[in-house]
Amino acid sequence: SAVMAKGEWKRSGTDDVQLTGRSEFHATHCLFLICVFFLFFRGIVASILVFLCFGVTQAKDGPFTRPHPAYWRFWLCVSVVYELFLIFILFQTVHDGRQFMKYIDPKLGVPLPERGYGGNCLIYDPGHPADPFHNIWDKMDGFVPAHFLGWYIKTLVIRDWWMCMIISVMFEFLEYSLEHQLPNFSECWWDHWIMDVLVCNGLGIYCGMKTLGWLSMKPYQWQGLWNIPTYKGKIKRIAFQFTPYSWVKFEWRPASNLRRWLAVLGIIFTFLLAELNTFYLKFVLWMPPEHYLVLLRLVFFVNVGGVAMREIYDFMDDPKFHKKLGQQAWIVAAITVTEFLIVVKYDPNTIMLPIPFFITQCWILGIVLILIWTLWRFFIRDITLRYKETRRRRQEGSSERDRVPGHADGSNLATSGRSKLNGSMDTVRHRKP
Amino acid sequence: SAVMAKGEWKRSGTDDVQLTGRSEFHATHCLFLICVFFLFFRGIVASILVFLCFGVTQAKDGPFTRPHPAYWRFWLCVSVVYELFLIFILFQTVHDGRQFMKYIDPKLGVPLPERGYGGNCLIYDPGHPADPFHNIWDKMDGFVPAHFLGWYIKTLVIRDWWMCMIISVMFEFLEYSLEHQLPNFSECWWDHWIMDVLVCNGLGIYCGMKTLGWLSMKPYQWQGLWNIPTYKGKIKRIAFQFTPYSWVKFEWRPASNLRRWLAVLGIIFTFLLAELNTFYLKFVLWMPPEHYLVLLRLVFFVNVGGVAMREIYDFMDDPKFHKKLGQQAWIVAAITVTEFLIVVKYDPNTIMLPIPFFITQCWILGIVLILIWTLWRFFIRDITLRYKETRRRRQEGSSERDRVPGHADGSNLATSGRSKLNGSMDTVRHRKP
Repeated sequence: SAVMAKGEWKRSGTDDVQLTGRSEFHATHCLFLICVFFLFFRGIVASILVFLCFGVTQAKDGPFTRPHPAYWRFWLCVSVVYELFLIFILFQTVHDGRQFMKYIDPKLGVPLPERGYGGNCLIYDPGHPADPFHNIWDKMDGFVPAHFLGWYIKTLVIRDWWMCMIISVMFEFLEYSLEHQLPNFSECWWDHWIMDVLVCNGLGIYCGMKTLGWLSMKPYQWQGLWNIPTYKGKIKRIAFQFTPYSWVKFEWRPASNLRRWLAVLGIIFTFLLAELNTFYLKFVLWMPPEHYLVLLRLVFFVNVGGVAMREIYDFMDDPKFHKKLGQQAWIVAAITVTEFLIVVKYDPNTIMLPIPFFITQCWILGIVLILIWTLWRFFIRDITLRYKETRRRRQEGSSERDRVPGHADGSNLATSGRSKLNGSMDTVRHRKP
Repeated sequence: SAVMAKGEWKRSGTDDVQLTGRSEFHATHCLFLICVFFLFFRGIVASILVFLCFGVTQAKDGPFTRPHPAYWRFWLCVSVVYELFLIFILFQTVHDGRQFMKYIDPKLGVPLPERGYGGNCLIYDPGHPADPFHNIWDKMDGFVPAHFLGWYIKTLVIRDWWMCMIISVMFEFLEYSLEHQLPNFSECWWDHWIMDVLVCNGLGIYCGMKTLGWLSMKPYQWQGLWNIPTYKGKIKRIAFQFTPYSWVKFEWRPASNLRRWLAVLGIIFTFLLAELNTFYLKFVLWMPPEHYLVLLRLVFFVNVGGVAMREIYDFMDDPKFHKKLGQQAWIVAAITVTEFLIVVKYDPNTIMLPIPFFITQCWILGIVLILIWTLWRFFIRDITLRYKETRRRRQEGSSERDRVPGHADGSNLATSGRSKLNGSMDTVRHRKP
């Protein structure tokens, strides 16, 4: 959201005057603690480096091999370290956890200033005759290319036009729904829908889909560098090392069966939760939005998220349930949950601020609609189809009827539970081409 | 060494009186530090538990599968945690590192009492008419079964009578050589050779070899538990789950080529270093020998050492060099080196105590003998064999001579380096059955 950059992270003069007494105490206090912890941290940093060395050489390989498997093993290990760091933060008290960030960057651990969010949403502001479009230029900041780039990469990760659009739109709905909790979710309507969804995200998704098309059509030739005769060919081969070895086109097909439908719902839910975590985590840990750790976290998520999404797809696409869900997918799920738990622990008051009644109504309506569609698509439609099928067979001849005795008996379906329904569903699905 | 148990880890009354002033300072100091670190440690313990959960489910499998692969993944993760802990300790100051042990057990971090090692080595002591054999009964303590059990397990790990005997004897030599550094290495001659090598270790190795024979002959039937009809069969099958899936007989054959010879020398060296670490680490970190952490470390080493040894054997036994050395072997090597570095950092004075001249002479003699044997077995003998072979061929006929032009040319062998020698060695080896 483009609003975030407006309020800058600075401590005003008045703040400093008010805090002088406490600051001095803090200074000596912190100095002592830093001395105590310094050696401690030297040991921890050394341990992390040794762990990365071990992991990069010895960890289990994931699905990706380019530019080198060690690259992906590195991110796997980073994700383990990050998850352990989150668990550590989760088990601190709120005060200690926030002050702990000081050991990473001494500028952190300071409350973020309150920001005034005066909403002047006029596109053409007649009050400023010199520059009536100043509201638009205000939003044109570094977050516009960031949104574009972000959605370009997300499209490469998800590899599906519809899922990207749904997540992009859903996130704007979430911003509307949660602006009473996090003030920087509140944006002008045209910032939400035109600049974010249509321009930044839409363009990012479009470019991402174009790249996907190129990647899936690209001829993959992986001959050794030394076998290529020309210099131009050699350079092209080196550049190609940074493109995938081969390309798997994701076909999520959420409506094809209940398992895929629930999985796609789960992916969208997790994705949105991870996006919300970005903002809430900054808020509860007092991280200014421009801090490099925020950017590092996003770079990290791009790398591990891509692997995790591929692992989830491989898991879902395996018809025989032989494959286990990949290691990276497990960690990314654990990280998302742990980040959410940190948010809940560190600021339960903000999370529990009551949602306005109108918004609650909208969400309940949406959930009910999804539930009804799920019921219709995977349960009721099947029963109807099955009933028609049975009636057709019954009409064809009485000899056929004996072979499918249970199917015509619709009366006990209500009591037989989901497992039986799924079983019958499979029968129906197998009959279709 | 059976001597260790004699001096017990207690603080005498006089010690307490002397330390009163310092103790009070220590008490408040420690109390404060414990308060500061308590929350810290809660986070670290939680992180370790999460790491273990992740590792036990997701880590790469090793060579062992019984009783369950997860069991061995667990020990792999424990070894990573232990290695990281060692790295952490290595990067503390000496004082901090020793005091750090207090967070594991508040009784630790206290200097070990000096022990009097009065050596009365008379087997039949006429000075005690009531019990003239009291010196022997004194040594008969808990360390006798510990030595036996230890060598029984080590035999299962190494799976070779000669290597076990060599390591067992070599360790007694090391105890002789290093008793000026660690007083609890000093034992009576009959304690060294009769009780340790012959009785405890020898019996352990003998029983180990018997078990190895049984394991390699045992018929391995791994049918599912539910397919076994009788109760007795089921119980037997459950018990068999705790025996290996199949048994690989280790044939180290150190004299077969230079690579295996150097590998076996390296294994013996590392094994002895790890054994010495046990004693030196206790000494520098002020661990009383009866402490449960010492026992835990040994249990840990039995598990990871067995896996590592199998991985080393698999690596060496692969004729085509396709296999990489296993992950567990790498970590065990790293742990041994890190433990040694901790010893060097924490007490360089003890390590650097000059070795008596007579002992230095013996070691130099031993190393020179090994070097000479290596040179003779893998270089000189080959040249001689090759020379004889060439002469034989030359006598057989001049037509054969042209096909092996380089072999007769003994003059340039001295300058051609090891790689060429190894190459020719291979030729010689292939000719033998």
